[in-house]
Amino acid sequence: MARSDLADTSCPVSRAIERVGDPWVLIILREAFLGTRKFDDFQRNTGASPHVLSLRLKQMCGDGILAKRAYCDSPLRYEYRLTDKGLELWPLIMVLHGWGQKWLGGQGVMLTHKACGARFAPQLSCPGCGAPLTARDVRAEISPDFQTEREQREEDHR
Amino acid sequence: MARSDLADTSCPVSRAIERVGDPWVLIILREAFLGTRKFDDFQRNTGASPHVLSLRLKQMCGDGILAKRAYCDSPLRYEYRLTDKGLELWPLIMVLHGWGQKWLGGQGVMLTHKACGARFAPQLSCPGCGAPLTARDVRAEISPDFQTEREQREEDHR
Repeated sequence: MARSDLADTSCPVSRAIERVGDPWVLIILREAFLGTRKFDDFQRNTGASPHVLSLRLKQMCGDGILAKRAYCDSPLRYEYRLTDKGLELWPLIMVLHGWGQKWLGGQGVMLTHKACGARFAPQLSCPGCGAPLTARDVRAEISPDFQTEREQREEDHR
Repeated sequence: MARSDLADTSCPVSRAIERVGDPWVLIILREAFLGTRKFDDFQRNTGASPHVLSLRLKQMCGDGILAKRAYCDSPLRYEYRLTDKGLELWPLIMVLHGWGQKWLGGQGVMLTHKACGARFAPQLSCPGCGAPLTARDVRAEISPDFQTEREQREEDHR
């Protein structure tokens, strides 16, 4: 699939998938949140080949998710750090963690809220009333733009 | 990458990525949460080829994320519905929605909490104190199993 196909839509879910809906990108993000910054460390902890890792890091820098910067001048060495845009992907890794732990088992990290000391299990809640939410609690109305796009697909499909 | 490589770890994030860290799987999930159930509708709304769609639906049924069932006997017709395991992937689509909307733009759906009427923007909060959380608010300690695994990778890498 061409990346552009997924981005050519008014749907922000699809646009986000175009950027981060890839197993290597997601594993690199996990590592970045664990504090990994150097190419060799990413390679070791992800198991990616140098070629694949290099392509993905370049893509993630181009997308503004990671920033590459020299941390040593002689010899010249680079590290990759999460930008603000990248840091805001933390909930994505957290929900994968929560779902994986519940349905597939395993324990990679133990999460604690620094401020109150509570064990942290990722959950979505309503910003209005604070209630924890599931799919059944939220009404999703398709926007006019997205509706037009879907009707166009239906016509093209005939 | 072989799927088994990603699953062969104590890390639930990696295990989850092995199941759902794929652009087609994620787009199929988005559609399923929008109410799509039939093969033709998935095909039209995702733009996947029949071959790719068929493979992914089969995989997702095998993984227990979707369930295939006949909704018509004559002619025999099937539909694909989210299981409980699949329904609990809703936060994954929500965080992609939130991040995509903020950083990439577009509006696919408008989300409302049915109970209180608040506009819903996905956010993670602490189950203990209710505070909204970002990556900086949570301490992640690597579990003993995962630490052993990482040290083994380091040895193998030398």
